[in-house]
Amino acid sequence: MDALYLLGLTATAAFAASGILAAMGTRIDLFGAVVVAVVTAIGGGTLRDLVLGVPVFWLHDQAFMACAATTGVVAFLGRAHLDAHGNLLAYLDAMGVALFASGAYIKSTELGLPPTHALVMGVITGIGGGLLRDTLTGRETLLVSPELYATPIIVGLGLQALIISVLGMPTDIGFAVGAISILVTRSLAIRYRLQMPAALINRPR
Amino acid sequence: MDALYLLGLTATAAFAASGILAAMGTRIDLFGAVVVAVVTAIGGGTLRDLVLGVPVFWLHDQAFMACAATTGVVAFLGRAHLDAHGNLLAYLDAMGVALFASGAYIKSTELGLPPTHALVMGVITGIGGGLLRDTLTGRETLLVSPELYATPIIVGLGLQALIISVLGMPTDIGFAVGAISILVTRSLAIRYRLQMPAALINRPR
Amino acid sequence: MDALYLLGLTATAAFAASGILAAMGTRIDLFGAVVVAVVTAIGGGTLRDLVLGVPVFWLHDQAFMACAATTGVVAFLGRAHLDAHGNLLAYLDAMGVALFASGAYIKSTELGLPPTHALVMGVITGIGGGLLRDTLTGRETLLVSPELYATPIIVGLGLQALIISVLGMPTDIGFAVGAISILVTRSLAIRYRLQMPAALINRPR
Repeated sequence: MDALYLLGLTATAAFAASGILAAMGTRIDLFGAVVVAVVTAIGGGTLRDLVLGVPVFWLHDQAFMACAATTGVVAFLGRAHLDAHGNLLAYLDAMGVALFASGAYIKSTELGLPPTHALVMGVITGIGGGLLRDTLTGRETLLVSPELYATPIIVGLGLQALIISVLGMPTDIGFAVGAISILVTRSLAIRYRLQMPAALINRPR
Repeated sequence: MDALYLLGLTATAAFAASGILAAMGTRIDLFGAVVVAVVTAIGGGTLRDLVLGVPVFWLHDQAFMACAATTGVVAFLGRAHLDAHGNLLAYLDAMGVALFASGAYIKSTELGLPPTHALVMGVITGIGGGLLRDTLTGRETLLVSPELYATPIIVGLGLQALIISVLGMPTDIGFAVGAISILVTRSLAIRYRLQMPAALINRPR
Repeated sequence: MDALYLLGLTATAAFAASGILAAMGTRIDLFGAVVVAVVTAIGGGTLRDLVLGVPVFWLHDQAFMACAATTGVVAFLGRAHLDAHGNLLAYLDAMGVALFASGAYIKSTELGLPPTHALVMGVITGIGGGLLRDTLTGRETLLVSPELYATPIIVGLGLQALIISVLGMPTDIGFAVGAISILVTRSLAIRYRLQMPAALINRPR
């Protein structure tokens, strides 16, 4: 499916750019930042493939690495402009998460995983790269965020599971609904600071 | 060995609950906390299976994921009660570590690893999930703890290696002695703040 | 190639010692520190082998684990002396990085990876163990360092790729030039605080 491939590259670029933005709080240089960008971009998918026991996706396809590195260089050089937008990091993360999570669901079911496990693989793949990014750059992870973060992913993948694995509708439709649902819900959460009901948020003492 | 399987689920639940407790220092919501719980519960065993080159244990067995997620939800909803106990996180961690470490020793020797390497696999499996938990929630890892942490694991697995690989006694006995030894020693260390002799503890300047 | 094997053990010892030094900022005990040393020493190579889909290098060869653990114990017991040298951690890291990165390039091309991907594998392998070390000990990663860090690795591996994959010269020469180039450049960067031109360094606001 060529569209899925192109969306994978889009997600790779979005995650790479989010890696550069995350590094903006540190005194990092060009090549250091590009390493952060690449690790962010390929981290989630690498984890997914290792767990699934299939060859790592970027190892025999030069496009992903080239895309991540190029985006990293361009984003670093243009960082003065990027920096201005408040929540850009979160929006880029949302784009990467949505596409990687929904794509991983498809890949997992094609390998014969049951829907529940494909959903878990989607979550792991979606958030894996971002967790590496936040660890590398010493930031608190977005998973511990005031706005909805895990919820849109789990709900979106739940919808995707319903469409593909319960209703038996075409994979493409399930992917589209899942990814768009994650992206839109998460974006609304960032924009309007949507949160879970107070009873479902922890209040540290 | 069915008992080993049930103990694996017990360890999974203990680690999942420790993940929820670790997240109590942050403003995290239900689903975010459940992700932390699941990653904590399956992290060590996933790492073990990747290194051993065998299929990841939870991928074709729904019980572990279901156990981790359910424990996470229940523990989060009941967090007001959990929170009260001072060292509960450390005790739950000890239970997970003991069972996972000793179980990994068995699995590794069954795959033909020599005792020293089975011991290393036990350590990695035991502490892997907790390290992911502490990284995700921004806590200092328990490995850097004032009380004995790595020592009980290494000593317990050493006993287990002696019983199984040197004395040739039954695997079950070795497992029981190893796991109980780790759990008891570590619990005593938490309760009575047992430490190494001062010469074997680093004093940062 | 026996020399490559011995250099691998040297890199293992250097990384293990860097792990002990990194732990010197914490109240860690002997066994905790040895775990940090071992994870630092085998982390990068483990990641490399998992991504390459080959058996993990230390699993059926006792030398690496024995070397890492022994170095860890000795370095911890002699920590009073180590501690005195200001940049020793960075120099030991440089030695480990240089040897592991160049070695990973060789291993990757032998497995049929194209030069660009072998270069990426070199970077990942070189910095992987150090990132684990810095995460475990709660330090800011060296990747975010005022001096050149990623640059010497990328440039050195680029030279190595030129010699081996473009000019078709013997692997040993490429390895030697790559590793020495990384070690020397990085050491000069530490000693003289060499940095990228200011335009290529981020200035956090």
